[in-house]
Order: sequence, then structure tokens, then C-alpha cells
Amino acid sequence: MSRIAYFGPVGTFSEQAARMFAQGENLVPVETIPAALSAVREGEAESACVPVENSVEGPVTATLDGLAEGSPLVAVAEVLLPVHFTVLVRPDVDTIRTVASHPHALAQVRHWLERNLPDAETVVASSTAAAAVGVCDGEYDAAVTAPAAAETYPLKVFAEGVADVPDARTRFLLLSPPGSLPEPTGADRTSIVAAAANRTGSLAELLTELALRDINLTRLDARPVKGNFGVYRFFLDFEGHIAEERVGDALAALRRRCEVRFLGSYPRADGARPVERDTAAEERFVSAARWVQAVRNGELA
Amino acid sequence: MSRIAYFGPVGTFSEQAARMFAQGENLVPVETIPAALSAVREGEAESACVPVENSVEGPVTATLDGLAEGSPLVAVAEVLLPVHFTVLVRPDVDTIRTVASHPHALAQVRHWLERNLPDAETVVASSTAAAAVGVCDGEYDAAVTAPAAAETYPLKVFAEGVADVPDARTRFLLLSPPGSLPEPTGADRTSIVAAAANRTGSLAELLTELALRDINLTRLDARPVKGNFGVYRFFLDFEGHIAEERVGDALAALRRRCEVRFLGSYPRADGARPVERDTAAEERFVSAARWVQAVRNGELA
Repeated sequence: MSRIAYFGPVGTFSEQAARMFAQGENLVPVETIPAALSAVREGEAESACVPVENSVEGPVTATLDGLAEGSPLVAVAEVLLPVHFTVLVRPDVDTIRTVASHPHALAQVRHWLERNLPDAETVVASSTAAAAVGVCDGEYDAAVTAPAAAETYPLKVFAEGVADVPDARTRFLLLSPPGSLPEPTGADRTSIVAAAANRTGSLAELLTELALRDINLTRLDARPVKGNFGVYRFFLDFEGHIAEERVGDALAALRRRCEVRFLGSYPRADGARPVERDTAAEERFVSAARWVQAVRNGELA
Repeated sequence: MSRIAYFGPVGTFSEQAARMFAQGENLVPVETIPAALSAVREGEAESACVPVENSVEGPVTATLDGLAEGSPLVAVAEVLLPVHFTVLVRPDVDTIRTVASHPHALAQVRHWLERNLPDAETVVASSTAAAAVGVCDGEYDAAVTAPAAAETYPLKVFAEGVADVPDARTRFLLLSPPGSLPEPTGADRTSIVAAAANRTGSLAELLTELALRDINLTRLDARPVKGNFGVYRFFLDFEGHIAEERVGDALAALRRRCEVRFLGSYPRADGARPVERDTAAEERFVSAARWVQAVRNGELA
């Protein structure tokens, strides 16, 4: 039976996301994002479920750096998970003096805590689930957790749907080694990482290659290359699937310019379809290539 | 025996150019540039020799307009002819009172005439050779002609090497119907005419498609489309041959954006080779296309 490794333990947002991806696979919690990627690279799991960006907190750098290096992994699916927290307490708690959670979670409920638990001290835990475990063990009085934790731990729900930003979301990817790609659906996203030359205009050139093919960028993150501050990698997400002519053509153009690693073409969780201008229509790519061939053969002009 | 139609009569720069193109063909003078193009289109000649631009006077609009419309013709060769005029007079001439020539020729010797024949009246003729014929017939006293005219007409050379701009040149094209293209030489030029959409940025997009492939533009002329003032056609000359991957790729990109007519890939008369950046190397085009195919097949990432 195939396995999905996820950034555990059970009861985290990652587990919720992994359940959304699962089609009968075993879910295997591992301790860190790099460990989830390694599990796939070393054959201990067939795929990994990891967060890649949060609409409030930004990119998940452990995932980005982990995808840029090591043997290639390719995203085959994404989910968008609303980030509404549940605050769990021990059933016998009287006064809440300490509230624990992962730092990203604490950052996203700061205002709620100020209003609702102004006297509680916040304590950092390694994950939202670890905070819940700490509450069970009597270490803390309360934990800010994923909704899934309420089903996992013998704790009492103090508050649900907690979020400073009501529509915060985290995007998760399901990653596998290169293999057959998901079929294009017409509402796809392609992710790459590009190591552009460190000279004037090199990023502008990459973006122009996409713009000229009417390919809409959906995300751009610049990350310094480890041990080489001042040299950057660009993580680009854009509309479309590599199976499309215009996307394949754009990827070839980027590849001519710099090192490019393909990080996947997969259906968008939001189902948004690109607005395609006429010049980027598939049919134009095919007919223009045919015209060049006919001109080369001296048949047309 | 095959024929080259040229903008005659004999004794013109066009005849000189046609002789440079000729490899045993019969040279057939015709009265106008459109007539030279028609001769090829209607099968009366296999090719046509016509001027396309002069380094002082600019584009030869009759040639450009004639190539943009009607059945396609493709340049298979070019020559650059230094434009030094010869002034011919009747052997019995006493005082030079009138000097005749084609308006372009008169424009290019204006200063010389002011200095050397300040009292002579200038008269417009339909070609430099027609001016020489007029001198023979006693219509004018002197003619500003191509050097070739001295060999053709029974006239006396009054001055040679006459030119206000010492390095003026005219570029001539040898045009044929589409057929087998000249082999790439490494120092080639490609000519096209493109009808870009009448909206902001459309020309910039065409030029960016070339620039991103490190293709250097050698000429750009914008000509209003007949009967549609405000709508322009762009005549572009650039380095390279359509047989090259980067040039074929650029032409496909232009063709996706607008109507493009191919006007030929042919060896440059000046033998100048393009400066090619690494990103435009043939090998990069081939390897990038292979990479995309392998990623599509799920073999690489």
C-alpha cells in the first residue's frame, strides 16, 4: 500500500491536507519538512504532503529550499486549506495561564489572544500538535491547534474558527519523484525554480519570456542560495500546464537562459482558468511552427 | 536561359548590381521597380534585381510596398554598391547649362553641383540612364549617371567618383519566387514584413521577441499601409538565417503575434557575422527543447 509522508504529528494542518490528497494511501507522520521530502527521495514513501505558502505568513522556506536541492521532486496536486484554529484546553482547566503553539500559528492568532486571553503567556512549540500534546501532559493550559487536533486529543474545545485574518489559507503540495504528470485540466499551475544569472535584467528577461506568451505569474519568491548571499533563486508559479504548447515553449526559453528545475504542472485547487489572449492560443503555436517549417522548405513565404 | 529583370535602362546602378548577381543569366531591363517584380511574378523572368535602401536616401519605398503585396517574392542575395556618380557630357559641349538625372541622384550630388557647376540648371529625368539618353539627344548638356553609363553611351566623362557623401551605398536584392533557400553561411540576413496590431506596445513586443533571442536588428522601416493611413507595416532586417534554431524560433513567435511575410534569408554582402550570446547558441535551443520533452514524458525535472 502506498504511503504519503507528511509534516506531522497527527492532528496538524498538514495531516488535514494529507487526508485531502489521500486516495487510500497510508498517512505517515514525520518530524520535519525536510524529513518528509527525504522519505520520498529514499523510497520510504511514494509521496509527501508539505505546506508551500501561507496567505498571511508567506512562503514556507523549508519546502522551497528542500525542492531546489537534492534529487528532483515534482508536485502532482495542491490543496488550499483555510487556516482557522481551534483552541484546546484541558477539561479540568480553571484559569488559562499559558497558551502554546507553533510560531506561525501564534502569529496568526495574536490579536485574538490579546482580546480573549490577555493575561495568558504564549509558549512556542514545535508544531500545533506538539502544543496539544503538551496540554495533555500538563505542560501548558491551552494550545492553538488545527481543527483536526480536536478529534485526536482528549481535550476540550475552548474556541473554534479562530483567526486574525478571516480568509487565511495555506497551500499544500503533494510531491512525488518525476514520473507521469497529471493530465492538463485547463485550470493548471506550473511551478519551477530558476537560478538566474547575477546580472542586470536577468529576472526581467525571465518574466518577459512568460509575459510575451501571455502566461500569468501567480507567485514569485526570491530566495538567496545557501552559502552564497547575494545570489538568488527564483521560485515561479504560473498559469498553465507543461503539456500546453505555450507553456512548453516558455519553459524552453527559460531553460536556454538559466538553470531551471521543473517543480510540477498540476490542477489548481481554486479551479481558476487562465485568461488566454489570442496570441497564446494553442492553435497559433502549432500553425506558426508549421509556417516556419514550410518557409524553410521553400514552400511558403 | 534564365533571366534577371532589373530596373533599367542599361547603364544604371541597377544594371551594375544585376551584373554582380548574374551567373550567366540574361539581364532584362524593365521600366520601373513594380515592373521588375511583376516580370518575376508572371514568369517572364526567374529573378529581379531591385534597390531596397540607400545609405543616404533611405528605403526605396517602391520596392518595400511591392514586396509587401502581391504574390510572395523572396530575396536570395544582396549586393552593396558604392554610389559614386559619373558626370557625362556631349563631346562637343561648350558651356554646361543643364544637368539632368534621377531625383535621388541629384540629391546625392547637390553640394558637388553647387561647387562645380553653380550656374547649371538641374532637370529631373526618370533614371540616371534616361538622363544620359537625353544628353545624347541634345535635350540636356550633362547627366549625373552611374559609372556603367560611361561604357554604354557615346558621351564624354566630365567627372568621376562624384558624391557628396563619400561612402554612400545602395543595397540591392535579387528576388525570386519561394523555392529552395540559400544555404546559411554564418553571416546571413533575414528580411520580413510584419503587420503589427494597431495597439500600444505591439512593435515593442516584436522587437523584444528578437532581443530575447539575441537577434540583432539591422534595419527597421515603418510604412503606412496603402489606403489605411495610421496603420503601419514594419519591414525588419535582422541577423541570422531561418535555418538557424534561434531565428526559426523568433519567426514563429512573430508569426503568432501578427501577419508576417518572409522576405528571405541570404548571405550579407558585408560578410559581418553576428555577435551571439551564449543563451542564443544553437546547442541551447536543441537541448532546451529536449529537456521540455523529457519533462513532459516524466523522465526529468
